[in-house]
Amino acid sequence: MHTRRKVVVVALGGNSLTKKGQRGTIYEQFANTRASVRTLWHLIELGYQLVITHGNGPQVGDFLIQMESAIAQVPPQPLGVIGAATQGTIGYMIQQTLQNHLILEGRDTPVVTILTQVVVDRHDPLLVDPIKPIGATFYTEEEAKKRMTELGWSMKEDAGRGWRRVVPSPVPLEIVELDVLESLLNAGAIVITAGGGGIPVIIEKDGRYEGVDAVIDKDLASGLLARSLDADVLIMLTAVDRVALDYASGHPTWLDRMTAHEAKEYLAQGQFPQGSMGPKIEASVEYLLGVRHKQTRKAIITDHEHLRQAMTGKAGTTITFQ
Amino acid sequence: MHTRRKVVVVALGGNSLTKKGQRGTIYEQFANTRASVRTLWHLIELGYQLVITHGNGPQVGDFLIQMESAIAQVPPQPLGVIGAATQGTIGYMIQQTLQNHLILEGRDTPVVTILTQVVVDRHDPLLVDPIKPIGATFYTEEEAKKRMTELGWSMKEDAGRGWRRVVPSPVPLEIVELDVLESLLNAGAIVITAGGGGIPVIIEKDGRYEGVDAVIDKDLASGLLARSLDADVLIMLTAVDRVALDYASGHPTWLDRMTAHEAKEYLAQGQFPQGSMGPKIEASVEYLLGVRHKQTRKAIITDHEHLRQAMTGKAGTTITFQ
Repeated sequence: MHTRRKVVVVALGGNSLTKKGQRGTIYEQFANTRASVRTLWHLIELGYQLVITHGNGPQVGDFLIQMESAIAQVPPQPLGVIGAATQGTIGYMIQQTLQNHLILEGRDTPVVTILTQVVVDRHDPLLVDPIKPIGATFYTEEEAKKRMTELGWSMKEDAGRGWRRVVPSPVPLEIVELDVLESLLNAGAIVITAGGGGIPVIIEKDGRYEGVDAVIDKDLASGLLARSLDADVLIMLTAVDRVALDYASGHPTWLDRMTAHEAKEYLAQGQFPQGSMGPKIEASVEYLLGVRHKQTRKAIITDHEHLRQAMTGKAGTTITFQ
Repeated sequence: MHTRRKVVVVALGGNSLTKKGQRGTIYEQFANTRASVRTLWHLIELGYQLVITHGNGPQVGDFLIQMESAIAQVPPQPLGVIGAATQGTIGYMIQQTLQNHLILEGRDTPVVTILTQVVVDRHDPLLVDPIKPIGATFYTEEEAKKRMTELGWSMKEDAGRGWRRVVPSPVPLEIVELDVLESLLNAGAIVITAGGGGIPVIIEKDGRYEGVDAVIDKDLASGLLARSLDADVLIMLTAVDRVALDYASGHPTWLDRMTAHEAKEYLAQGQFPQGSMGPKIEASVEYLLGVRHKQTRKAIITDHEHLRQAMTGKAGTTITFQ
């Protein structure tokens, strides 16, 4: 019987698997994953037990293009099912790559990917209002209107670049598979979970789960995960070393540390853009204000290169309760 | 702490999710899954702990059509990655449907879907020789040759109906995630695993896993799973109530019971066609001759309608060690 060690929830950004400018071939994705796994290995060496989450933006974009190209032959799938597909494909790449790294290092730690559903509120205004752009395809107004009529999509004009599909992105409230996740951690496993933010489900009046055609932000899901598991550390890996204030001004102030209350204040000031740094800060606040052992917990936002130093506060942005 | 109960491995056929003649919309697939789950519920009522596997033929076929339709925009994925995607999508449908059934019945049994890799032998002749047709698309000779040249596919002419893509289907040898699966069973969970026969991997000389562009027969994987877990019963659900001898003659003899040695003999006589009943009988033989507690184990082949009666030997075909 293993005992649970210090637990870290690590959220891998979309660019951990597909880099900007790449086509996203399987060779590129596995090569990028190998690089990401070297970062994870450092955390294992430090004695942490890992819970890994990941984004799925580029992969969902690819599935949507494929789905639309074959729409006359194959019925389209809702976003929850596409999310489930990416939990499989990305989970597989991360899992196998990490298993191989562990094998070469002589470790027999089990690694497991579990399909994960995340409960959202059926009355969440964000579930009703589709505002999150999805996929990388821009359409003409005519193409957009055709899809709104024929496929029931919501489309919005995007800053003069064309029309894009937009989908709802409600707030994650509860990890359906939390008990299973705890069992696996107690058995000593490294767990890959809540991929792409998890498959969004609502709870019907009779208690049943029902999938909704939406996506969940993977950073917000990671914050929920870290809080629910009482994780020791929440790490969100991204493309920049640190969080900045006044970023848009051209004279950013880079932050080494802040408290959850300061972070909340900065959020209220509109310091962090939606869809990039905003959800990472929100997730940190959600985790640090809600987690059981607040005083000893920390959230870290940094890039792969600086994580090692960020673990001892020498790089990255560290957020603590106080 | 739960203790492990009687374990049954149930393999759901492809027609448990997509029926012949249906387009395979998400509504059809969920409706079919709900019908399949009623069969699974009967096993839970009998006190069994379930390990569920499933086919993925129609779903892989759909992914291949989508992939080919968008090949100019999105790089194609190997079969292992497509298999991983279907473990996500089909796992999600079965898992949520089963969870909902359990909730309405007032049970809190956890249900979990785990990504599953299955080891094959790098020297397996079936890995070198692609003979298993995949997908539902038939090509002209010209289209087929173009794909052989440009995509490196193997194609074969199929009984005058046109050319089809063929892929290797090696013998499954070992479930990579077996330890995790045992932990989950010990924690009392219902586990969905080895979907589509599992993601085929070989073991490199340095011990690393490496995916191969192949598929594994889901019945053979189920037999391996039942043997590896020392499961009490292996159930393979299919479109017919019982196994027949001399089926092709037009005067079939329907079998209620046979021993593993009789089954092996019938296989040697060529009684069971490859790609349908053959692998189910092979899986039964593999399980019953290899499992630890041979004397008390049984394999059952039947359809959803007859499973209830088949559990007490009143329907279906039951295979025992002796």
